[in-house]
Amino acid sequence: MSRIAILGAGRVASSLATALVEQGHQVTIGVRDQTRTRDWLVEPMVCTSIGEAVVGADVVFNATPGETSLERLSAVREELAGKILVDVSNAVERGLNGLPGTLTYPGSSLGEMLQAALPDTKVVKTLNTMLFTVMANPGSLSTPATVFVSGDHADAKATVTGLLQDLGWTPGSILDLGDIRTARGPEAMILAVPDLIAARGLAPFAITVAS
Amino acid sequence: MSRIAILGAGRVASSLATALVEQGHQVTIGVRDQTRTRDWLVEPMVCTSIGEAVVGADVVFNATPGETSLERLSAVREELAGKILVDVSNAVERGLNGLPGTLTYPGSSLGEMLQAALPDTKVVKTLNTMLFTVMANPGSLSTPATVFVSGDHADAKATVTGLLQDLGWTPGSILDLGDIRTARGPEAMILAVPDLIAARGLAPFAITVAS
Repeated sequence: MSRIAILGAGRVASSLATALVEQGHQVTIGVRDQTRTRDWLVEPMVCTSIGEAVVGADVVFNATPGETSLERLSAVREELAGKILVDVSNAVERGLNGLPGTLTYPGSSLGEMLQAALPDTKVVKTLNTMLFTVMANPGSLSTPATVFVSGDHADAKATVTGLLQDLGWTPGSILDLGDIRTARGPEAMILAVPDLIAARGLAPFAITVAS
Repeated sequence: MSRIAILGAGRVASSLATALVEQGHQVTIGVRDQTRTRDWLVEPMVCTSIGEAVVGADVVFNATPGETSLERLSAVREELAGKILVDVSNAVERGLNGLPGTLTYPGSSLGEMLQAALPDTKVVKTLNTMLFTVMANPGSLSTPATVFVSGDHADAKATVTGLLQDLGWTPGSILDLGDIRTARGPEAMILAVPDLIAARGLAPFAITVAS
């Protein structure tokens, strides 16, 4: 059992929170606005401020909008010290249609920016290359899928790999690309997502390495 | 039977040329330096200049290094008028290790740049998201693979789809993303390739949409 904070309260956060609670983890949701009603919040999940959620956790999932994450997480830099930060977000400037347009950090990646801004935190990038429904339910796909993992800290990647298995990812589907710089490739894949959705509809998918 | 020109004489060009000849197509190789020995050139392939190869073809494959392609192909703009240009290349600035570093056209794509520079040519982007060995041999993979197709011209995409099937791609593996602007997503995937090769070795792969 891990003490997990999930920052954000969108579809990504609710999918991950629901699945991680089912696996017996203690899950706290950290949000900016605690007054909003969120139907998917069920016992024993707790909803509190971002700072308080981080303080009570060993592993923190970043499910805030990626283009806002650097500012929001830098604001809780001290609370995040010594913890694992699992960044599942995508930092993109959205087009008029609300879909991802260009990368917020071309030539770099949000994963790298977070690790540089939070040197006492162990950042692991993963789960950002699929429809949110697949993150906690890879078995919903009929063909084998890949989940990429990038990070500078082997112990943190081992912990995250365990959590990925709790979410249904088999060891063979988890591809450790290397250090946090390798987040660039998977983060750039978001550029294909609006076109994938336009071509295929909102059907579940995961960008994958066929081998 | 199509009259096909393949521009370039590297591993991509030789793989495609060999497979397309086997499928009964007439293949001409267009190169800058015709004096170099190329062991893989077999009858009835012909090797000539880029301009001459284009003139005698209906479909032209661009397998020159992507970062040089805009200049090389603009030089034969008139010869390319009215033809289909299948761009299978990746335009990247290479790092010290010779592997792709950053995109040559961030915020755009080589496919779009070529279509803009060659308005009388029908540009189709495809096959740029896999190890070269897979382009003409998708059956070498043990899991289902995707080949992306982007282009503004439906008739050209239909022709290219037929050639992809000649190369072994099943109809279900061919994913038409839309117009040439949609080349941005697949082109950005090249950023993951050096890390994939570092993590997995030179094993065949294709970046794919698991569904």
